[in-house]
Amino acid sequence: MSMRTHYCGLTTEALLGQTVSLCGWVHRRRDHGGVIFIDLRDREGLVQVVCDPDRADVFKTAEAVRNEFCLRITGVVRDRPEGTTNANLQSGKIEVLCHQIEVLNPSVTPPFQLDDDNLSETTRLTHRVLDLRRPQMQQNLRLRYKVTMEVRKFLDANGFIDIETPMLTKSTPEGARDYLVPSRVNAGHFFALPQSPQLFKQLLMVANFDRYYQITKCFRDEDLRADRQPEFTQIDCETSFMGEQEIRDLFEGMIRLVFKNTLDIELPNPFPVMDYATAMGLYGSDKPDMRVKMEFTDLTAVMKDVEFKVFSGAANMEGGRVVGLRVPGGAKEGTGMPRSEIDAYTQFVAIYGAKGLAYIKVNEKAKGRDGLQSPIVKNIHDAALAQIIEQTGAQDGDLIFFGADKAKVVNDAIGALRVKIGHSDFGRKNGLFEETWKPLWVIDFPMFEFDEDNQRYVAAHHPFTSPKDGHEDFLETDPGKAIAKAYDMVLNGWELGGGSVRIHRADVQSKVFRALKIDAEEAQLKFGFLLDALQYGAPPHGGLAFGLDRIVTMMTGAESIRDVIAFPKTQRAQCLLTQAPSEVDEKQLRELHIRLRNVEPAVKA
Amino acid sequence: MSMRTHYCGLTTEALLGQTVSLCGWVHRRRDHGGVIFIDLRDREGLVQVVCDPDRADVFKTAEAVRNEFCLRITGVVRDRPEGTTNANLQSGKIEVLCHQIEVLNPSVTPPFQLDDDNLSETTRLTHRVLDLRRPQMQQNLRLRYKVTMEVRKFLDANGFIDIETPMLTKSTPEGARDYLVPSRVNAGHFFALPQSPQLFKQLLMVANFDRYYQITKCFRDEDLRADRQPEFTQIDCETSFMGEQEIRDLFEGMIRLVFKNTLDIELPNPFPVMDYATAMGLYGSDKPDMRVKMEFTDLTAVMKDVEFKVFSGAANMEGGRVVGLRVPGGAKEGTGMPRSEIDAYTQFVAIYGAKGLAYIKVNEKAKGRDGLQSPIVKNIHDAALAQIIEQTGAQDGDLIFFGADKAKVVNDAIGALRVKIGHSDFGRKNGLFEETWKPLWVIDFPMFEFDEDNQRYVAAHHPFTSPKDGHEDFLETDPGKAIAKAYDMVLNGWELGGGSVRIHRADVQSKVFRALKIDAEEAQLKFGFLLDALQYGAPPHGGLAFGLDRIVTMMTGAESIRDVIAFPKTQRAQCLLTQAPSEVDEKQLRELHIRLRNVEPAVKA
Repeated sequence: MSMRTHYCGLTTEALLGQTVSLCGWVHRRRDHGGVIFIDLRDREGLVQVVCDPDRADVFKTAEAVRNEFCLRITGVVRDRPEGTTNANLQSGKIEVLCHQIEVLNPSVTPPFQLDDDNLSETTRLTHRVLDLRRPQMQQNLRLRYKVTMEVRKFLDANGFIDIETPMLTKSTPEGARDYLVPSRVNAGHFFALPQSPQLFKQLLMVANFDRYYQITKCFRDEDLRADRQPEFTQIDCETSFMGEQEIRDLFEGMIRLVFKNTLDIELPNPFPVMDYATAMGLYGSDKPDMRVKMEFTDLTAVMKDVEFKVFSGAANMEGGRVVGLRVPGGAKEGTGMPRSEIDAYTQFVAIYGAKGLAYIKVNEKAKGRDGLQSPIVKNIHDAALAQIIEQTGAQDGDLIFFGADKAKVVNDAIGALRVKIGHSDFGRKNGLFEETWKPLWVIDFPMFEFDEDNQRYVAAHHPFTSPKDGHEDFLETDPGKAIAKAYDMVLNGWELGGGSVRIHRADVQSKVFRALKIDAEEAQLKFGFLLDALQYGAPPHGGLAFGLDRIVTMMTGAESIRDVIAFPKTQRAQCLLTQAPSEVDEKQLRELHIRLRNVEPAVKA
Repeated sequence: MSMRTHYCGLTTEALLGQTVSLCGWVHRRRDHGGVIFIDLRDREGLVQVVCDPDRADVFKTAEAVRNEFCLRITGVVRDRPEGTTNANLQSGKIEVLCHQIEVLNPSVTPPFQLDDDNLSETTRLTHRVLDLRRPQMQQNLRLRYKVTMEVRKFLDANGFIDIETPMLTKSTPEGARDYLVPSRVNAGHFFALPQSPQLFKQLLMVANFDRYYQITKCFRDEDLRADRQPEFTQIDCETSFMGEQEIRDLFEGMIRLVFKNTLDIELPNPFPVMDYATAMGLYGSDKPDMRVKMEFTDLTAVMKDVEFKVFSGAANMEGGRVVGLRVPGGAKEGTGMPRSEIDAYTQFVAIYGAKGLAYIKVNEKAKGRDGLQSPIVKNIHDAALAQIIEQTGAQDGDLIFFGADKAKVVNDAIGALRVKIGHSDFGRKNGLFEETWKPLWVIDFPMFEFDEDNQRYVAAHHPFTSPKDGHEDFLETDPGKAIAKAYDMVLNGWELGGGSVRIHRADVQSKVFRALKIDAEEAQLKFGFLLDALQYGAPPHGGLAFGLDRIVTMMTGAESIRDVIAFPKTQRAQCLLTQAPSEVDEKQLRELHIRLRNVEPAVKA
């Protein structure tokens, strides 16, 4: 004896003449010509229910229902009258003539209309249960589920098995800040929530599980940005006995399948591959948005002897860089960029630390210097100007922006400018942006980055990443030169995932720790269990992790990852629905052997 | 260019004459008649590799390898010589003549032999990575994976979608103790790790997701018993618009499918159903092991006026109970229970608080009192003796044990005794135990239990459980009488899972809170977000949760749930592999606004 026979949204003309029972919520109630129409909503969509004054009891109940009442109705499916069908609904050709109606649960008036698209995020998160009833949120979370199920099916077919790793684990204060969990049984000791299952998955490879995956929560106690949450979900994968190329091919196939089977999108096959140095050189980014049809031209060598100090200073500085960014059509009469837009970009690049934004308008290059329009042209000698035009490939009507500073500032500022212009109205109108899906592998990352503040190398990926074959010696002689077997999958300027081949030999792992100035004692204390495991014939292994929240955000086109998470935290790491975190009883703190510091305790127990 | 072409364990006669590349670990190396045999192991099993002195380089490497070295070999598959095939191995008809051998990674000597079955749990957990290489552990975790995948496929086919709920959530100090996570951003505030996603899954039903599931970690900071872990995994399910019977039918089908598709075990269809009162009456347990062929006989009424004070006292006490447990053949000459065994059971029931264990041997019932052998018979009048024989259905040669005390003591003690005797050699030899799978639904649990210590009712299931139709008034008039729409799935004496139809109306929820002496203010503070959600047309809903660790433990026949978890904690809630929990830096504590209480801080930063 089921409460319902069908879903509202799936009640179609195939059921004409049949009696159906439906359960759902009143989406809208209209009184029209003495008849009451109820749009009844369930997770599959809407159906129109007609309550006729002939049936007095039904009509009386129908008169009293309001939006978001939960109803069960029984009725007969019939054609809608000519001219009243609704092509937007799967049930749009039919309606249900109501014979019985039961209010399963009334509703107070919701604090907002479900179809109001201008709600503040605070309102939405406070009333998350109602917010989640909105069709967009329903779709987002269902797509998220479909993505994970496609991933699971693919990995299952490829011999991966899901193995759970601990949530209560050991604090290793490397990288991000840990969330800590005080132990009651072991006074003064703390668990940490995992930042990733990295070490455990490596241990599982050493333990001969061969192919592992897990779709699991990870935790980082960082200050939140738009695309960060304190807890986030990783598709975490690891395999033994596969090389870098095989690993990339496999997971590229997975992502292609996921896009095909969920959104019917065909991603290119194969994905283009670019090394890190090229990506930084051409786009100033290790996750370039390849939809944008502009590239950097490196002009560092050209600018070494120009009079314009901003350029020559950067060109001659250690670690300095000068680049040009050609904007086709940017100086074209009528359709080019107005001065106000150029000024706005000057402000924009300042966010990234650029001290200005030089530019040249190429009005008529055949005229040489006279055909160029810019305050800086007079301080650049002819040969350099000619090189700028030649190397950027500038044509009449183009605009060239310049970045000149420490390489990081140039890359960040002009890299962001490139994306900004590409996505702008100007960019879209002038063919600088292609509305499509542009995946890319970025490979050959450096092993280490130099931390200027602490004057030491830090791991660019993580300290368990294998150097490229032949680069082991650089670990000791010149760490900055060592390239890693690390790879990131990038899509439209977002990093979807990344990984590496790992170090499987204890001696190489020790060398990396030494390069990072982690001494043997510290290494043993923090990672002793890994070093120990590597001694027992650890297999060659590698893998990667994808950010599920981010993938689904991209796929749905949502503005924030909070729109693809059922119960997210705010940027202050709070849950507005449940009011977590909250104060706790003094008794609880006592049991955990901790007390508050400089905070009034919440004495309740 | 793959490192391997096949798995070792799957290299069979189908590949005769072919060249294969295999990767794996040296399971055993034998030098036999000048030829070296290596059993190479990967996750699919073993294969025999033959290294022949003809190939000097191969032979030299093979001589140097030791157990657990990680190798890559290339060779040709050939028949094993007559008489040397091994029927226990999938690869047992063939061997691989090695042409090339590469040591991918050497191994130091492992601290134990992988096939040693007498390792202490401390050794196993300390060297977990090696322990996990053992075939039994490999099988356990693969079965665990297969179970979850079967569950996911079943739920997917039935329209359930996996939705993640928060790990960092709100502390509600009801039930078990929370694990707390101090907030850095919100000084003096704490998250709690979820004891279950109960409230969130109910909110998802209110939010119109209709059918939800999640295979997720839950956390309880309790003192650990053999079958408990600080973090454990639940298969958590919830559905809207289904009644109790439909929910049970659906999930019974799921468990039947899982057993069929993983172990090829056919569970009965349908599962028997028993109400709580009957289960307690007949077995003294709400999770009776139905493989044991003995039942209680309630003799409370019979014993009210006997001279034997232990019986009449219990029979007349409020909440007292007297039961008999007939053990067929227990008093039979030669094959019955020896006195020593009966004495041992007297000790055994004392664990459960029983002050003694009275018994009667039925030697020849036709002789009446004279045919019965027992120290207590003289203090029981004839009519009562006749009732004992009649009601228990005792036959000559049977033994009857008695329990007489407060009902809880009787149920616990005689319930445990029933299982103990059933599983004993005596029980197995005398047909009191059936080696099979005996599932059972136990239903109609009480809403509340009376907490004598605090003189108040507490929720028997949890406070969101719906009373049976018609029992709503008992919530106010006589809470002890109210029966819940709650159900447990029991298998061979273990609770596999349990659930209930939930309260979907705010007024009923408030009544339950009142019965539990949770006043309106406290209810609002702790569960305000639920009460709020129920106001917006919450649908009828219900569900259940299965304990994954426990299900897999049963299915594998493992001794402990620690054998079906990759990286479990000890009973002191420690990870012997990583040494979690551990001390943390003072700086970390400062950032979290906490300090240690009565513990020396670990000053490191």
